[in-house]
Amino acid sequence: MPLSPDQQAEVDALRDAPQQTLRATAPGIEQHLYRAHDVLDHGFVRVIDYMGDDSAICQAARVSYGRGTKSVQNDEGLIRYLMRHWHSTPFEMCEIKLHVKLPVFVARQWIRHRTANVNEYSARYSILDREFYIPAPDHLNAQSVVNNQGRGALLEGEEAARVLDILKADSNRAYDHYEQMISEDGQSGLARELARMNLPANIYTQWYWKVDLHNLFHFLRLRADAHAQYEIRVYADAIAKVVADWVPAAYGAFEDYRMGGAQLSAKGLECVRRMLKGEEVTQETSGMSKGEWREFEGVLNDPA
Amino acid sequence: MPLSPDQQAEVDALRDAPQQTLRATAPGIEQHLYRAHDVLDHGFVRVIDYMGDDSAICQAARVSYGRGTKSVQNDEGLIRYLMRHWHSTPFEMCEIKLHVKLPVFVARQWIRHRTANVNEYSARYSILDREFYIPAPDHLNAQSVVNNQGRGALLEGEEAARVLDILKADSNRAYDHYEQMISEDGQSGLARELARMNLPANIYTQWYWKVDLHNLFHFLRLRADAHAQYEIRVYADAIAKVVADWVPAAYGAFEDYRMGGAQLSAKGLECVRRMLKGEEVTQETSGMSKGEWREFEGVLNDPA
Amino acid sequence: MPLSPDQQAEVDALRDAPQQTLRATAPGIEQHLYRAHDVLDHGFVRVIDYMGDDSAICQAARVSYGRGTKSVQNDEGLIRYLMRHWHSTPFEMCEIKLHVKLPVFVARQWIRHRTANVNEYSARYSILDREFYIPAPDHLNAQSVVNNQGRGALLEGEEAARVLDILKADSNRAYDHYEQMISEDGQSGLARELARMNLPANIYTQWYWKVDLHNLFHFLRLRADAHAQYEIRVYADAIAKVVADWVPAAYGAFEDYRMGGAQLSAKGLECVRRMLKGEEVTQETSGMSKGEWREFEGVLNDPA
Amino acid sequence: MPLSPDQQAEVDALRDAPQQTLRATAPGIEQHLYRAHDVLDHGFVRVIDYMGDDSAICQAARVSYGRGTKSVQNDEGLIRYLMRHWHSTPFEMCEIKLHVKLPVFVARQWIRHRTANVNEYSARYSILDREFYIPAPDHLNAQSVVNNQGRGALLEGEEAARVLDILKADSNRAYDHYEQMISEDGQSGLARELARMNLPANIYTQWYWKVDLHNLFHFLRLRADAHAQYEIRVYADAIAKVVADWVPAAYGAFEDYRMGGAQLSAKGLECVRRMLKGEEVTQETSGMSKGEWREFEGVLNDPA
Repeated sequence: MPLSPDQQAEVDALRDAPQQTLRATAPGIEQHLYRAHDVLDHGFVRVIDYMGDDSAICQAARVSYGRGTKSVQNDEGLIRYLMRHWHSTPFEMCEIKLHVKLPVFVARQWIRHRTANVNEYSARYSILDREFYIPAPDHLNAQSVVNNQGRGALLEGEEAARVLDILKADSNRAYDHYEQMISEDGQSGLARELARMNLPANIYTQWYWKVDLHNLFHFLRLRADAHAQYEIRVYADAIAKVVADWVPAAYGAFEDYRMGGAQLSAKGLECVRRMLKGEEVTQETSGMSKGEWREFEGVLNDPA
Repeated sequence: MPLSPDQQAEVDALRDAPQQTLRATAPGIEQHLYRAHDVLDHGFVRVIDYMGDDSAICQAARVSYGRGTKSVQNDEGLIRYLMRHWHSTPFEMCEIKLHVKLPVFVARQWIRHRTANVNEYSARYSILDREFYIPAPDHLNAQSVVNNQGRGALLEGEEAARVLDILKADSNRAYDHYEQMISEDGQSGLARELARMNLPANIYTQWYWKVDLHNLFHFLRLRADAHAQYEIRVYADAIAKVVADWVPAAYGAFEDYRMGGAQLSAKGLECVRRMLKGEEVTQETSGMSKGEWREFEGVLNDPA
Repeated sequence: MPLSPDQQAEVDALRDAPQQTLRATAPGIEQHLYRAHDVLDHGFVRVIDYMGDDSAICQAARVSYGRGTKSVQNDEGLIRYLMRHWHSTPFEMCEIKLHVKLPVFVARQWIRHRTANVNEYSARYSILDREFYIPAPDHLNAQSVVNNQGRGALLEGEEAARVLDILKADSNRAYDHYEQMISEDGQSGLARELARMNLPANIYTQWYWKVDLHNLFHFLRLRADAHAQYEIRVYADAIAKVVADWVPAAYGAFEDYRMGGAQLSAKGLECVRRMLKGEEVTQETSGMSKGEWREFEGVLNDPA
Repeated sequence: MPLSPDQQAEVDALRDAPQQTLRATAPGIEQHLYRAHDVLDHGFVRVIDYMGDDSAICQAARVSYGRGTKSVQNDEGLIRYLMRHWHSTPFEMCEIKLHVKLPVFVARQWIRHRTANVNEYSARYSILDREFYIPAPDHLNAQSVVNNQGRGALLEGEEAARVLDILKADSNRAYDHYEQMISEDGQSGLARELARMNLPANIYTQWYWKVDLHNLFHFLRLRADAHAQYEIRVYADAIAKVVADWVPAAYGAFEDYRMGGAQLSAKGLECVRRMLKGEEVTQETSGMSKGEWREFEGVLNDPA
């Protein structure tokens, strides 16, 4: 859903007013400032502000007087070293502030990341808009039969149609009733802080969310992961693209050491060592449970 | 709503099995362990565990080898001193773990207190129960006409009846549809992580919540306050009673210095000084805005 | 102590390279960027970066699409309202990054403020400089006879001279020995991570410290307070001046509602009410301990 | 150094007074309560209190009404699953409180773990004891020649003797001067908050430290690691033994998935896959830098 003309005008006004600053500036993220990156059917992610860049990570790691840069190559080497050895504090020296519009059930997962600053649109104070997340047909899945916490095959035909009908009808009815209850036409009008309780979890809310780069990487590792629920993963993916433009060296190290890598257990490591010596290792001889072995094989065979 | 017989049996089993420990034990809170204190129509607060007591606060403040107690009177004096001078770290040395059942819209406010540990019942993994908060008639208020963020007079007559009808009917319909969507009778069954989005914010969820005493006092100060929404205030009130039994000296200091006290601004303090010298001070001569002056008068006149 | 020519050149290079940005820019703090504000005999505070301004606080509080500004006057009113009612999250939307050089015993107090990001110069990895804090004669005080945790009268004459001689001689000897132990001239050279243990707590260290405005205000309230140790208070004072230039409206509200105000206890409030009705209240009739009463009188009489 | 008779009597009094409680009790850790586990020459770790056990982790993960235990075997499987999949919140439901005596330079590293509660002995308020860490001859190492942040070979002969002489003499002289400066014999006596600045970083301090199990595991992973400085590693090792007795299932999972395991990068994982297919991979064909390759080989060959 596009921004309203008023909202777009506010965004444009900010984009038309570049200013001079002595602060570290990251050209790659300036282009993203204020623009809305669409996510799901009505959601978005907008970069509102940022602090620091790849050099700022090195500057802090070296506690230096200047930018901390020796050369781009040195900086990248240092950043990779810091990431590899879990030296997380220099990454905390970069900060980003986002404006996010998202369904309430996504917000409820997101907020569990506590090391961040949040200001959410208040439904005690204000009236929410009539905007609900309705899944696209290619993201309407059945309950997984192998994983209690995941999705299986796509719903099809009549079942899919019926689900979409329910979601749409219930959302709209709930919103109609919300409006009727708070209306002051010929009545007192129910308090907003009470009326909101009738609204389902697919209604959209919005917030300002500010987080440092280390904690953002942690968020991305968990939420851009294949096991995360699709509806939060698409937000993580949108943010990941912004981060790649903002701090390319740090993002590269993150991809190599965190997203693309894998944690092997002591047992898994021992199995790899035996296999490299030519031994045939099976689940029975691995010391792992069936579930662990399946995951271990997945790591070694890389389904991607 | 009472616990189910199975749940009650689990609680009883725990209450029947006292054990010996060398840890500091607070008799006042032992009686509360595991019992459900009812809150709202289906909610509760249950104490699951605690660490420390009034003496533990003093023990940590003194970094002592023993209990830190000189005498009960000395301990109380020290605790009052610590509270008065914002020495918060000794209060962090006590910890409490609660099991709470609460409506989702209350949970969304509660979770904003970030310095706590939380495990919430997962609606990705499990199926929620058919339990919804429906306000009692004496807590069904209109939107306040003086405070955008509060409640005004009670709704009456037909309007109240209509609101209750809507809330009940919509809750039940939403739950019926939730059940229909996830059912695997003759269909694949929508993934739980998707189906939950149809459920309104008055459905009950539950969580384990663990917090230290300093941060709990902060929670109570904000949520047991008259400006907090009624539906979270009743939880804060229930917890406050438990805390008063657990750490009576600390709770007494909290009541005196935080809950019952007031923060005066520099302007407010200057006005008090002038008034004590006999000067008649009005809003116009106070340097305060009308809103500040009204709040200042409220403090001096104590509506309670 | 002035920066070395190399350090000054690095600072100058940064100050000579303004860049264009679309981010919110606060003119009042740009002048401070990178410059060293001297504190104590060898310390300093330098602003390395900042995020946000007064408008950014309002923008987040309103979750708005644009700057959140209606007018400067409205913004100030909103900021004062937020501060008065302990709505802290909008203030968390501003962030500042400082480079600080400070004695180790000051750093040990400072680090107790946990909600901040820190990168400290590593004495495991690097060699510390020969720079020690030696108090100026007008800050060389005796132990207080009324407050176990404070200072009394200035030391004078021979006693003062002897103390300064000890501090200087011990500092230099410790550093000489540190150098001798790590030297690789004709020996293996003790590991730096071990040799540092010989250095006293008045040696200077440095760090990058990044914090949001809400937590910075909390730091200032405790550390710019008259009860804070002088050697950390001067850092808080230097930072407070920067903050006043950065976010003037927020700083004004902070001064009125926090620094210049006072927290009255329930008992204190009740006494004020009685006094305003003309009653003569004494410590005996106040319900307060002697210590509390003395502090209460101090608030009402304002020694400043 | 043994506790003083007074201190030992305080400890004994606590150990002689078992009490009844309804809380979850972990027999394995009760034996540790209050006892001092010696660390270094004058330091110790003492368990003051704890909350929860292995079952409490499962109880929270299941948000259950009772203990959450189905069977010991099921509990262990669940705990391993939670650890493997980075579900950290159930581990936060256990808490431990320690009394630690440690050299100041160790305390300065330790305090960087921010998600914990701390009360340190105050040298503003109290007088420190004459206790300094002097390394044993088998832990007196030269600076590493391959790692800027580590130790190399042991110092020997005259060099070792000279270093120990310096450390002992400087410690004692610093303490003599500290005592002289604060003495009130015939003088005013320097304020304690100032006098302490003369004391070197090997003086012992003590604190109460309280942390949840998830954050404690994080501390142990970094500080019980071979790259951690020896003087903090021995504290981590002492704590690890306590934890193994307290929550054996969680500790077992931690050992398998964290301490004994390894994080492979995307490049490292790709190399393993190629090697398992029979390809000979060298640093040149690995895509890794020399440093990364050396660490990668270390993982595959396990020096232990």
